[in-house]
Amino acid sequence: MGAMKGVILSIDPEVRIVDISHEISPQEIMEAAFVLRDAAFYFPAGTIHIVVVDPGVGTSRSPLALRAAGHTFVGPDNGVLPLLLNDTPPTECVVLEPHKFHGTGEISSTFHGRDIFAPAAAQLSCGVPLLELGRAYRDLKPLHWALPMADDEGVQGWIVHIDHFGNCITNVSQQILDDKRVERPVKCFIGNAIIGGISTTYGDVETGEPLVYFNSSHFLEFAVNAGNAAELHGIRKGDPIKILFREQK
Amino acid sequence: MGAMKGVILSIDPEVRIVDISHEISPQEIMEAAFVLRDAAFYFPAGTIHIVVVDPGVGTSRSPLALRAAGHTFVGPDNGVLPLLLNDTPPTECVVLEPHKFHGTGEISSTFHGRDIFAPAAAQLSCGVPLLELGRAYRDLKPLHWALPMADDEGVQGWIVHIDHFGNCITNVSQQILDDKRVERPVKCFIGNAIIGGISTTYGDVETGEPLVYFNSSHFLEFAVNAGNAAELHGIRKGDPIKILFREQK
Amino acid sequence: MGAMKGVILSIDPEVRIVDISHEISPQEIMEAAFVLRDAAFYFPAGTIHIVVVDPGVGTSRSPLALRAAGHTFVGPDNGVLPLLLNDTPPTECVVLEPHKFHGTGEISSTFHGRDIFAPAAAQLSCGVPLLELGRAYRDLKPLHWALPMADDEGVQGWIVHIDHFGNCITNVSQQILDDKRVERPVKCFIGNAIIGGISTTYGDVETGEPLVYFNSSHFLEFAVNAGNAAELHGIRKGDPIKILFREQK
Repeated sequence: MGAMKGVILSIDPEVRIVDISHEISPQEIMEAAFVLRDAAFYFPAGTIHIVVVDPGVGTSRSPLALRAAGHTFVGPDNGVLPLLLNDTPPTECVVLEPHKFHGTGEISSTFHGRDIFAPAAAQLSCGVPLLELGRAYRDLKPLHWALPMADDEGVQGWIVHIDHFGNCITNVSQQILDDKRVERPVKCFIGNAIIGGISTTYGDVETGEPLVYFNSSHFLEFAVNAGNAAELHGIRKGDPIKILFREQK
Repeated sequence: MGAMKGVILSIDPEVRIVDISHEISPQEIMEAAFVLRDAAFYFPAGTIHIVVVDPGVGTSRSPLALRAAGHTFVGPDNGVLPLLLNDTPPTECVVLEPHKFHGTGEISSTFHGRDIFAPAAAQLSCGVPLLELGRAYRDLKPLHWALPMADDEGVQGWIVHIDHFGNCITNVSQQILDDKRVERPVKCFIGNAIIGGISTTYGDVETGEPLVYFNSSHFLEFAVNAGNAAELHGIRKGDPIKILFREQK
Repeated sequence: MGAMKGVILSIDPEVRIVDISHEISPQEIMEAAFVLRDAAFYFPAGTIHIVVVDPGVGTSRSPLALRAAGHTFVGPDNGVLPLLLNDTPPTECVVLEPHKFHGTGEISSTFHGRDIFAPAAAQLSCGVPLLELGRAYRDLKPLHWALPMADDEGVQGWIVHIDHFGNCITNVSQQILDDKRVERPVKCFIGNAIIGGISTTYGDVETGEPLVYFNSSHFLEFAVNAGNAAELHGIRKGDPIKILFREQK
């Protein structure tokens, strides 16, 4: 990561570099997309985002750069970009051709972050048009989030990310429950916890007690007030959460 | 954290953002205040510090912004700010009223860092006066560090922070020992270690040996030369340290 | 680290501060030098690098600043700088004399990063000549990387760094194998893995399978495709890797 910053500053000494997250598990494309889409669009329009979660580096997967919703993204064609964009179609997309911007520099087969993505992003930051860095690409494979299963009895989703606090973020969106016109009460099963009802904030329950609530990104999240929910309840990424709709008398 | 940086840069594109620490344990108000007061006042006067250790987010605790000693602090009214200021009274203090600076944006109940503190800090950075962001607040609850117990026989304190190196920082200040006019020798008990005398630096003892010394912030610290004191001696945050004054013959 | 950034910005408010790595093990001079030399020279000429891996802080080891290959380095005289420079001789080198640039400020005996290296680097950043910060020093002890043992049968090296992904970086350079005119095939022994041949990239083997390849810095690296090699194969820093040359029929 240090070398990437060095490459960028060598090309555009005026650029401003910001670290988004040090929390992504290695190789976790879904998790990276989940964390990044919560942060990326809070940055000013025109921001260039580099995504280097790249388990397929050195294989035939293409390096991409694209523009969508006023932002620019540079990263591998492994699904992380379409997931991050969440169905927003890119207005422009190219397969990066390093000889067009990297001169005669050597391209390693294991660190495209340093050798392709960083120099491409720095060129864009200097104002080089996207189409000068590669060839137009219209086949960006859309990749959809695996969605929770929902029926009239309830919803089953799973944990997509566990944050620094041990909070467990699920893929159950507020939208899904709204679509089912779920009026509370509901009952949630997650790990060894059973929770009646959806809280608004941590303070709704006593210290040490578990709760579920819609987080600031409108997904259902499992937490413990002033505690580490993942550790206390033995939750791991991928574990299921079940929300049952209860009969109203 | 990424989203907070995005919000700030969207409001003030020229601001300079610096990360202070990635070492604070979740929800640890005392530890956050302890680490931050060691760093904050080394920054230039006029710096705006955002503190987001906020276990009470979403409850009735107020969001604050205040000025003290030439610096500005933005954070929750949970004690972290008075601890950080260490009895320096603020010259100005407001309860943040988000409708005054956040427009019609939604305020989540779990991420005030993104939705209140970051936009308030960015407005301040743009030069908006503190009093335009909220209403004057004169009831900032002072919160005092729990102090070690001292008598003519010795001092008992405890570990308030364990750093990246495993060094154990206590709440026993040089001042407390000076007040007791302690001339060495002393004897320190901490975990399973017994240490005679206070060293000046790591190199005063052999590699692998434990020592106590006044650290660069003038608090007594327990360490192992070239080792992880917390692991080697089984120390955890909150553990006691006893300093006994020894008879001089 | 927060305090160091504060000190630097207080002296030179215009300086740009970049974090290189949060991955160095405490007190690991060799590992720090290994990680940093992979990043430092990708930064623009004129960059000032501060190295604070400093187990001997407070002993008689000198604080240094030097220029080499167009970059400036500030750090302790404990071997980390010559290792980092990898035999590039410095064009200028001084022992820092804090009274020349730190005014009457107190110098702690345990945090020279804040009290010596940060203010010296900030002065350099403001354009103060190196020689005004201390006295010329011509005795920089060269320190050489311990090299793998090689003969006509094979090479034995060891693991010098394990990264965030669990990839195990060895001290076996491509140069060493080239010098032996090794045409593949070879056979590698590392931990409980036996690997025939050197791959080009992760995708050359199936998911979960181990491989060795020359990394982007031209050292042999042991990894598992989409897995944590260190955990899966029980590798720790310092463990040996053996490369046997196989007879070609």
